[in-house]
Amino acid sequence: MNPRFDFTITATDGASRTGTISMRRGDIRTPAFMPVGTAATVKAMKPDDVRSAGADIILGNTYHLMLRPSAERIHRLGGLHAFMGWDRPILTDSGGYQVMSLSELTKRSEDGVVFKSHLDGSRHMMSPERSMEIQRLLGSDIVMAFDELVPSDTTREVQAAAMERSMRWAKRSRDGFDSGEEHADRAALFGIQQGALDQDLRRASADALIDIGFDGYAIGGLAVGEGQDAMFGVLDFAPGQLPADKPRYLMGVGKPDDIVGAVERGVDMFDCVMPTRSGRTGQAFTRDGPINIRNARFAEDTGPLDPECGCPACAGWSRAYIHHLVRAGEILGAMLMTEHNIFFYQALMADLRDAIAKGELKTFANRFLARYVRKKQA
Amino acid sequence: MNPRFDFTITATDGASRTGTISMRRGDIRTPAFMPVGTAATVKAMKPDDVRSAGADIILGNTYHLMLRPSAERIHRLGGLHAFMGWDRPILTDSGGYQVMSLSELTKRSEDGVVFKSHLDGSRHMMSPERSMEIQRLLGSDIVMAFDELVPSDTTREVQAAAMERSMRWAKRSRDGFDSGEEHADRAALFGIQQGALDQDLRRASADALIDIGFDGYAIGGLAVGEGQDAMFGVLDFAPGQLPADKPRYLMGVGKPDDIVGAVERGVDMFDCVMPTRSGRTGQAFTRDGPINIRNARFAEDTGPLDPECGCPACAGWSRAYIHHLVRAGEILGAMLMTEHNIFFYQALMADLRDAIAKGELKTFANRFLARYVRKKQA
Repeated sequence: MNPRFDFTITATDGASRTGTISMRRGDIRTPAFMPVGTAATVKAMKPDDVRSAGADIILGNTYHLMLRPSAERIHRLGGLHAFMGWDRPILTDSGGYQVMSLSELTKRSEDGVVFKSHLDGSRHMMSPERSMEIQRLLGSDIVMAFDELVPSDTTREVQAAAMERSMRWAKRSRDGFDSGEEHADRAALFGIQQGALDQDLRRASADALIDIGFDGYAIGGLAVGEGQDAMFGVLDFAPGQLPADKPRYLMGVGKPDDIVGAVERGVDMFDCVMPTRSGRTGQAFTRDGPINIRNARFAEDTGPLDPECGCPACAGWSRAYIHHLVRAGEILGAMLMTEHNIFFYQALMADLRDAIAKGELKTFANRFLARYVRKKQA
Repeated sequence: MNPRFDFTITATDGASRTGTISMRRGDIRTPAFMPVGTAATVKAMKPDDVRSAGADIILGNTYHLMLRPSAERIHRLGGLHAFMGWDRPILTDSGGYQVMSLSELTKRSEDGVVFKSHLDGSRHMMSPERSMEIQRLLGSDIVMAFDELVPSDTTREVQAAAMERSMRWAKRSRDGFDSGEEHADRAALFGIQQGALDQDLRRASADALIDIGFDGYAIGGLAVGEGQDAMFGVLDFAPGQLPADKPRYLMGVGKPDDIVGAVERGVDMFDCVMPTRSGRTGQAFTRDGPINIRNARFAEDTGPLDPECGCPACAGWSRAYIHHLVRAGEILGAMLMTEHNIFFYQALMADLRDAIAKGELKTFANRFLARYVRKKQA
């Protein structure tokens, strides 16, 4: 027992699956949503409350942590888990996405990327090998391969070249990870499928990754502005290109209706800043679609954010109170909104897992979406 | 039982006293520190955590609440306790201090004050009668009389005139409060002694208040820049001018060493934004004096904020982690720092109560101050 990485599928329903990833630091029930803890904190929440909301695993951002407080410092302080007080699994991204979206890029080559920090302009190098080293220093449980990001509106040639380079970098990530000795004995490594919206590129990418061999497979390069229809179009074929017996992780997704559609298409893992970020900007998720709590119509609304929610914020406080807090810029407003939103997402994942186990996913999805999307568009 | 307001002194030690104020919403152990919940929230804390830190009572600001979301709205929503989720006693100030320090004053007269909101420039009127009405609408447990504030550097004549007007307003506050019917049957009313640093003015003010009759007596007009020596100079005589069998409340005080000195001089109740505000700016209180957690020397300090503290923040996280959070501007940094500081203040009050009960206040105070103040000045 206490395995490094074991994925057991307990039920399927169409393309969807539910099961458990077992790791040394705990089990991850799938389909799983990973709250984002960018800077070693799921913003505005204590780790115990993230756990109480139902999260089995959280995500840490390699790019942010390498710049502040640095991977080496976190390593000296006992690793990311001890540093932030979360003892369950942590998935770290490779840093590639943020290096290419947040920093000032100075040079991109086959070797890797030289960039300047968005915080202080300091110069850094990132490569497959350095990404593996950083994620090892952080003590990550699920390590992501380092890949190359290109804008979604580039030509097929550019996308093909980036995908092919990403596959070479995936091999270097595999080798770098495997050289990590005892960390490699405890952690898991995921490859990332690229290829934009193109089925043949996605196929070639999947085959290259399978040839290298990973514990799980991410679907990268989506949720970058292509729209839900185009994303679902890719998800109609991409999960099937990846091994059926390994977890499939759709990176950076998404809205509740995105998640429902992706689970229906065979995705097992998700992460997104939406519930936390929305919590700080006044958007609360409800079963009748998102609401902006700043809206004047909530000023004397004595009901909870979502009448069907069982979270502490909904148990203890009214929309009117949270409306007041958010309007007044009070920290407690961000705290309660974030806790509710994380709880909402985790409850949705629990409902999805339950529906798959019962073979009722289509019914659940239709009912959920009819209410969530209709109200959202009203 | 379940009294409107009962103050029982269980032990004295020199001028200091310890005891219990019993009210319908709960007991208040004295000497007591009241965390400030300006805008219907003790900033960055859930009410349950404020209670867990040891607070028996919190303070709400009439001025802020009347402007946003308004006393009438809070009344319609069931009162301040239900609105914010705190079911124990709440003391509300009269609004006078903030009206005269935060708003744009347009007219001050015997009748009251006309002012413009610092939030939106809207025009409002405040008077003893209106202050009583607002505090009744909020559902306050301890209502403060409305008084006039003058700068501490004015002439004795100006201070005498302000004190005398404040005493006329104290009588109008008493009458306004008493006309509040069932609220007056549940709540308590405190008068506020004025008279700046002048012993004769303070005596005259105390006598005027005693003649009107209140449940408790505040010492107002201190902690406004006069310095600790001058404040202690007033506290050498002011508490003795007030009834021995009623609680004495030193408004807006203060630093831990201010509180120790005031308790030694016979003060029973305190409020101050210091622990909460400091928590948001990086200052943590410790038994060795305050520290600025942003300081680089804490970057890899694996110890808790205060090694002798029993609060959740000290139990769960290192100075290094909180240093990182505060430097990164993370909300969790403000949350943990605030929780620690409120816990520190409540632990100090518990220690003071315990020392008085044992007849060891002087020993405790000397030991506390030797460590707290010496290190602070080092």
